[in-house]
Amino acid sequence: MSPSPRKPRPAGRPPASVLTPEKIASAALHLISREGNFTMSKLAQQLEVAPSSLYNHLSSRDQVLAAISDHIAQGIDTSALTLAAQQLDLRASEPQQVRRTWIQATSHWARSYRRAFSLTPAVVTTLAITPVRQAPATLAMYENVTQAFLLFGLSHRQALLTIEALEAFLLGAALDTQAPADIFNPSPHQQEHPAIWAAYQELGPTPQDEAFELGLGALLEGLACQLQGPKPSEAPKARGTTPSFTGT
Amino acid sequence: MSPSPRKPRPAGRPPASVLTPEKIASAALHLISREGNFTMSKLAQQLEVAPSSLYNHLSSRDQVLAAISDHIAQGIDTSALTLAAQQLDLRASEPQQVRRTWIQATSHWARSYRRAFSLTPAVVTTLAITPVRQAPATLAMYENVTQAFLLFGLSHRQALLTIEALEAFLLGAALDTQAPADIFNPSPHQQEHPAIWAAYQELGPTPQDEAFELGLGALLEGLACQLQGPKPSEAPKARGTTPSFTGT
Repeated sequence: MSPSPRKPRPAGRPPASVLTPEKIASAALHLISREGNFTMSKLAQQLEVAPSSLYNHLSSRDQVLAAISDHIAQGIDTSALTLAAQQLDLRASEPQQVRRTWIQATSHWARSYRRAFSLTPAVVTTLAITPVRQAPATLAMYENVTQAFLLFGLSHRQALLTIEALEAFLLGAALDTQAPADIFNPSPHQQEHPAIWAAYQELGPTPQDEAFELGLGALLEGLACQLQGPKPSEAPKARGTTPSFTGT
Repeated sequence: MSPSPRKPRPAGRPPASVLTPEKIASAALHLISREGNFTMSKLAQQLEVAPSSLYNHLSSRDQVLAAISDHIAQGIDTSALTLAAQQLDLRASEPQQVRRTWIQATSHWARSYRRAFSLTPAVVTTLAITPVRQAPATLAMYENVTQAFLLFGLSHRQALLTIEALEAFLLGAALDTQAPADIFNPSPHQQEHPAIWAAYQELGPTPQDEAFELGLGALLEGLACQLQGPKPSEAPKARGTTPSFTGT
């Protein structure tokens, strides 16, 4: 992970000049993956630069986390969702058709989200609790999804809670991609646990993908019921209360 | 975290005798919470015992992880789910009623699961990828849930994939409980991100709980559709294929 420029550096140019936020983010990703965590001084050591050089580029640990977040957000595809939302004519469409379109377009975003986060578990965890305000690409991703959900008829509040609920599932599913394939294998205690043993033997070769598609379909089907709900302007604010689930 | 027995130890009794798997699990939990990871030698140091004493109780890092898993599994309540499954008469019940009962009983388990895992993110991550075979209390929890789902009419394969899909959401939601309340606050970049800013301002004081209840309701509603599906004996094995979601 030492900086290795493609052509020789001009004499006298300080090593810090080869640092970029992207390079720092990448080194921090490696540290988190390997050690579960990172400090600015360990990161400087990893990059073979003085801590002061590091701080010239990203002035705090939070800024490094934001750079990692943006690095991952660039792999998340909101284009299908945005396009579907822009092409939708909410007044001329049947509710059933609006729900189908929303499910299809949101699935596209969701699959790319899970893929982008299918990294070492420590990275997923670290980012799951990192505020987005210093991460412009991450913020842009959230803004795109929220805008699209508004066009589909969700209120602002519904849109953000829907994103948060979906994210819980997507981050958990991304973690699950890193679990060993035999995580549910009860052997050598299969005799005491016959149901889980029989179930484990019936799993296909990619249970994580199957569970993900099962859960994503179910979750989106359930969340799409909100698209039938009251118009945004009529929706109760219900601050501090548990939102009632408007399922069938 | 040093061993501090309530009464003075008998003279000559070796320090290792105050170690218990529970005490080791608790020390490892603290290490993971603080440092994102642990090694057996760091754990021995934390407990102020020789590594060999530690190995007398739990013979590997995996066994320590299993002890942590069991410690957490003991906080997960499967009783309502088991009771509802045992009291159910599948042949005499309307499908709609079976689904309602399943959703209610599974919610009870799911809420206790999220609560039990509402720990530091590094712990959630570590356990999300730890095989269950060496953790008897964890195995028993899975066996109970699988048995109950079978009584509700799911096939073995459906039961385990449903558990895995629910777990992805529950672990993600547990992670979300550890996120700062202002994680979605775009300020000071609110002008470039008007939708996320308006949505953020409409959130109540406990968005994590609201998003959890929204997602749980939606996910269970969607997953309950499987209870209408073909009888277990008729269900295709579909090894290696993506299960089709039998939504409405």
